[in-house]
Amino acid sequence: MRLGELSRRSGVSTATIKYYLREGLLPAGRQVNTTTAEYDEEHLRRLRLVRAMIQVGRVPVATVREVLKHVDDESLGRTIRMGAALWALPQVSEPDEEDEYVRAAHQEVGELLRTLGWANAQALVTLSPAYRSLVVAVAALRRLGYDWESERLVAYAQLMHRAAVLDLDFVETHPSEAEKVETAVLGAILAEPLLQALHRLAQEEESARRYGFE
Amino acid sequence: MRLGELSRRSGVSTATIKYYLREGLLPAGRQVNTTTAEYDEEHLRRLRLVRAMIQVGRVPVATVREVLKHVDDESLGRTIRMGAALWALPQVSEPDEEDEYVRAAHQEVGELLRTLGWANAQALVTLSPAYRSLVVAVAALRRLGYDWESERLVAYAQLMHRAAVLDLDFVETHPSEAEKVETAVLGAILAEPLLQALHRLAQEEESARRYGFE
Repeated sequence: MRLGELSRRSGVSTATIKYYLREGLLPAGRQVNTTTAEYDEEHLRRLRLVRAMIQVGRVPVATVREVLKHVDDESLGRTIRMGAALWALPQVSEPDEEDEYVRAAHQEVGELLRTLGWANAQALVTLSPAYRSLVVAVAALRRLGYDWESERLVAYAQLMHRAAVLDLDFVETHPSEAEKVETAVLGAILAEPLLQALHRLAQEEESARRYGFE
Repeated sequence: MRLGELSRRSGVSTATIKYYLREGLLPAGRQVNTTTAEYDEEHLRRLRLVRAMIQVGRVPVATVREVLKHVDDESLGRTIRMGAALWALPQVSEPDEEDEYVRAAHQEVGELLRTLGWANAQALVTLSPAYRSLVVAVAALRRLGYDWESERLVAYAQLMHRAAVLDLDFVETHPSEAEKVETAVLGAILAEPLLQALHRLAQEEESARRYGFE
C-alpha cells in the first residue's frame, strides 16, 4: 500500500508517519520509484504499536526506539522481548531502602512469592520493576496503617495470575513470533486501563449488591 | 494526643497538619487551653486519608474537601460514600461520542454487562466514570486492531469481580461505619498500584514458565 492508504488504515496522519520514518521508529517502505514507497501489513502493525506507546502510554520517542530494539532482537528469548515495554516504561517511585516500611515490605513480598511458588519471579527480584513497584505499594499501604492478613495478598496475587494466563493465551492466538511479541507489548500498555476500569465497575456493582444505593 | 504526637504517629509534619486544619481538611482538635489542642484516633485516621489522597492520588486540595464532604455525609448510602473518591478523582479522557469505535464500544460494554448480569452497573451507565473509562479502553484497543472474542472480556470482568469481593470483604472487617467508608476511599486510591504490580509480576512469572528466560 502507498503512504496515503497506510495513513487511512492506521488513522495516523502522513506527516506523523514521515516523522516516525525519520526517527527510525518505522522501517522504510520498499522504494518503487524516486517519489513513491510501498508499505505492507508489517508497517501497519508497527505503526499501531508505536502509536499506542506514544499516545496511550506517553512513552518518549527515545524510549520507543529502545523498546523496539528489544522487540526486534531475535537473539533474545520471548519472555524478555515481550517484557521490553514494561521494563522500559517510566517507573513509579523507587523504593527507599533506608525506610523501615520498605524493608518490611521486601520481607512480606518475599514470603508472598514463596507461598505462591513463583520461582521465576523470585529469581527476577533484583531486576524486575514490577517487583519494586509491588514493594512500594505494600510499604505505602502499611505506612498508612492498612492491616491485612497475608492470605489476602495471596488471594489477590492468584487472581492476577489468572489474568496473566488469559493475557498469554491471547498472545498465543497470534500466528507469528513478531505478532506475539507486539501483542504482548501493546497489551502491557493498553490492557491495564481496561482491567482498572473493570475493577472499578465491579466495585460499584458489588457495593450496590451489598448495600444498595440508599 | 497533642499536635507533636499526631505528627509523629502520622509521619506528617506539624506545619502540614496546621495547613490541613486551616484548609478544613482536618477537623479542629478539642481546645484544652488557648495554645493547646487535643487530637484523637479519628484525627489520625482522617490525616492518613487526606495524606493518601494528596500524596499518592495527587488529588487537588479542593477535590479532597469535596470527597470528604461526601465521606462525612451520613444521609448518603454507603455505596455512594465509598465511591466518593473514585467519582471525584481526575478522570482519564472522556469518550468522544462522535467516534465510530466509541459507539461500538458502548454496544460491546452494554452486552458485557447483560452477560455478566451486573444490573446495578447497568443502572449506573449514564453516571459512572468507571463505565466511561471502560468504553474508552475498549475503543482504544479495537481501534488498534485488537481482536478478541466477547468471552475474553467476560473472563477478565469475572476476575475483577472476585477482586471487588475481596475488597469489600476487607472493608467489612472494620467495625465502624466511618472506618468502612475511609478504608474504601483509601483502597480505591492505593490498591490499584498494588493490583497493577501483582499483575505485571504474574505476567513475568507466567511468561517465564511458558517460554523460559532464553
